[in-house]
Amino acid sequence: MVGYPTKKTVHSNPNVYIGNRGMSFEDEINESNEYYIAHEKALIHKKPTPIQIVKVNYPSRNKAKIVEAYFRTPSTTDYNGIYKGRPIDFEAKQIQSKVSFPLQFIHAHQVEHLRRVLKHGGIGFVLLRFTAYQETYLIDAKDVIEKYDDPKTKSLTYEWVKEAGYQVKDGYQPRLNYLDVVDKVYFKGE
Amino acid sequence: MVGYPTKKTVHSNPNVYIGNRGMSFEDEINESNEYYIAHEKALIHKKPTPIQIVKVNYPSRNKAKIVEAYFRTPSTTDYNGIYKGRPIDFEAKQIQSKVSFPLQFIHAHQVEHLRRVLKHGGIGFVLLRFTAYQETYLIDAKDVIEKYDDPKTKSLTYEWVKEAGYQVKDGYQPRLNYLDVVDKVYFKGE
Repeated sequence: MVGYPTKKTVHSNPNVYIGNRGMSFEDEINESNEYYIAHEKALIHKKPTPIQIVKVNYPSRNKAKIVEAYFRTPSTTDYNGIYKGRPIDFEAKQIQSKVSFPLQFIHAHQVEHLRRVLKHGGIGFVLLRFTAYQETYLIDAKDVIEKYDDPKTKSLTYEWVKEAGYQVKDGYQPRLNYLDVVDKVYFKGE
Repeated sequence: MVGYPTKKTVHSNPNVYIGNRGMSFEDEINESNEYYIAHEKALIHKKPTPIQIVKVNYPSRNKAKIVEAYFRTPSTTDYNGIYKGRPIDFEAKQIQSKVSFPLQFIHAHQVEHLRRVLKHGGIGFVLLRFTAYQETYLIDAKDVIEKYDDPKTKSLTYEWVKEAGYQVKDGYQPRLNYLDVVDKVYFKGE
């Protein structure tokens, strides 16, 4: 059974627990993915939260109730799928700070996963939202990994993200048209 | 909150509940995937089981215990990832019958998902094991969908699977070298 690591002072899943704003970023991405699926533009899903199930009761036939379970540390990113025949894989994070995003919010496993995505020819990136500005940026996995591998770098500054990343503009349908940015970054000239 | 549909008489996740054999097929696939990852051959993961969390207790700081949750019907297949730069997506099923695999064991959502995988240019298939023979077959998604769409067809017969599918030979490392078959079927002449 796996609980949250106790030595961390930050919560390991900032997307879920930073109040309503956290849910709404995730909801925006999920809504956009539903839009992409409905319009046959892409096939991208959020992976279910990994959970270690310890005990299940069966209060009635055909009904299973989980009564003891624990969150597990994800071994991959949260989102993946297919866009224009290519594998696409990304993690979404948000931060309330106006200054920087601490890299410790990304699990080591997830960074390793993004490294493998690039190695196997997939498109990999991080969607990072600064909630204070209501701004969302796509940052290529290669750039995030480079920062992560640099022992001197503990966080991605807002200034750096603005320069290295690509802003995802808010829209109406879909709310967060991140594939528009994916087109510009990964499908130039197509 | 979502429980199992009550009108079904079959269990909706045969992989998990048909005794040890169910686990071992899943374990074999997971072990093979770990082998592929370790040897940088492919990046394929099983998706976590989708669960609807209703109640979480916090018996101590930094520790979350889920005390009420329910299984949800999966909206996608169980496995996906990247192989040789291409998206790969499949469902794994096993059956004890010596005669046929009932198509009702595959969720409608999963068939729709496989349809979309093909539409978006991914490689999609079903890994089907007949436990009575200890034989595993890769069946291309297109063939499974064709049978699923035929109102007269309620199941995939063993005879048909042997003809339409491609047998995955048991091996030592990895135990279930299904990418060997993927090479033959989807990467001919490469």
